[in-house]
Amino acid sequence: MTYDLYYWPSIQGRGEFVRLALEEAGADYTDVARASTGKGSGMLAMLELMQGESIKYAPFAPPFLKAGQRLIAQTANVLLFLGDRHVLAPKSDAGRLWTHQLQLTIADLVQEIHDTHHPIASGLYYEEQREEARRRSNDFLASRAPKYLDYFETVLKRNTARGDYLVGARLTYADLSLFQIVEGLRYAFPRAMVGLEMSHPRVVAVRNHVAERASIADYLASSRRIPFNDEGIFRHYPELDAAP
Amino acid sequence: MTYDLYYWPSIQGRGEFVRLALEEAGADYTDVARASTGKGSGMLAMLELMQGESIKYAPFAPPFLKAGQRLIAQTANVLLFLGDRHVLAPKSDAGRLWTHQLQLTIADLVQEIHDTHHPIASGLYYEEQREEARRRSNDFLASRAPKYLDYFETVLKRNTARGDYLVGARLTYADLSLFQIVEGLRYAFPRAMVGLEMSHPRVVAVRNHVAERASIADYLASSRRIPFNDEGIFRHYPELDAAP
Repeated sequence: MTYDLYYWPSIQGRGEFVRLALEEAGADYTDVARASTGKGSGMLAMLELMQGESIKYAPFAPPFLKAGQRLIAQTANVLLFLGDRHVLAPKSDAGRLWTHQLQLTIADLVQEIHDTHHPIASGLYYEEQREEARRRSNDFLASRAPKYLDYFETVLKRNTARGDYLVGARLTYADLSLFQIVEGLRYAFPRAMVGLEMSHPRVVAVRNHVAERASIADYLASSRRIPFNDEGIFRHYPELDAAP
Repeated sequence: MTYDLYYWPSIQGRGEFVRLALEEAGADYTDVARASTGKGSGMLAMLELMQGESIKYAPFAPPFLKAGQRLIAQTANVLLFLGDRHVLAPKSDAGRLWTHQLQLTIADLVQEIHDTHHPIASGLYYEEQREEARRRSNDFLASRAPKYLDYFETVLKRNTARGDYLVGARLTYADLSLFQIVEGLRYAFPRAMVGLEMSHPRVVAVRNHVAERASIADYLASSRRIPFNDEGIFRHYPELDAAP
């Protein structure tokens, strides 16, 4: 199966959670909006799918994945689909839903991270909501980030299976997403993360295990990995970062 | 199967999306935190489950559902589970994921609605972020609410099956949730909703169909339906509502 991934071409964003799963699975995929040549490539192809009146299962927003005739959107939903196909989640119903539950909690965290720099409106520039962003970031770093990371630390502590993974003894897409959370928070809030990492060693261990996987290490070193930048979800504005 | 639903006892909140599914299914359930008598009832029982160190599949936050030995959290995840069990979603894999995709988009909308009155910090009072809430609500009503409602209107338009439902010809949990969105927006933003309803007749039709179902009509007239109030996700602050 060859997949077509549709996402904004210049940022990691929410698309990165899907990219990491595709890369770990060794799946054959085209990052359509980044492909500049060929029929059905580039941003135009993505916008056509978003606006095409014949698309019955229309996506609300990128990322979305084309798998044969199917078009699947919402990051966590795409991962639910890929998890089944590429053994990136348990086969049992209970294990599948638990992995998905963790992913949905990560999705909530991602939204809160986005809102640290855009607390008022995603359609306005950061500079138009800088003061509000400062207030929201203070709360995020003092209260919300610790709450989420405490939660994942607890989940890891209670998983008594061998290995440093969230679910049982095998890697799931939720581990890949938690890796991305740590990487993104390091980029966005390097000072605050010093303290947060010290108090969440199991979360950091997941990050390290994922980074060392051959497939992921290869991906991270490739040009397929878009560098973090200040257009995405994780943005580094020094004035929003707390002292360590 | 008897279910135990755990959610804050004084608000509809995110728990209401689960309650509507349980009610439509005619499921036997206990709203645990609202039950004041009996062993394992009340808020204490909910907090014990949230903080209990023996809970392997710990929830990050309410709502969560106990089904036999299973504990399932994240609203959309609970609905995915209930949809399979109570025929509140298609049986096909493609239909299940499409319904879930719509639900996850509703979940994003719910979060944006919450943030209209709490754009800075959920741990602060509304009065401590009133100015920011005014800015965020203006953007929500001018830009975000129309974008989401346009999307659901488009989905309904493209569903050529008989009936006024989001997916095929049968009611799904996503329709129940869209009903709750319309009800909640009417409560929170009555002036703005006058115009929004006029331009989204198919969304309003879903709301009407759901309200007329015997199970739902019975529920809405009962004391099990907590009235909207200004502690929940949908809050009516007249200063945040736009002129129609």
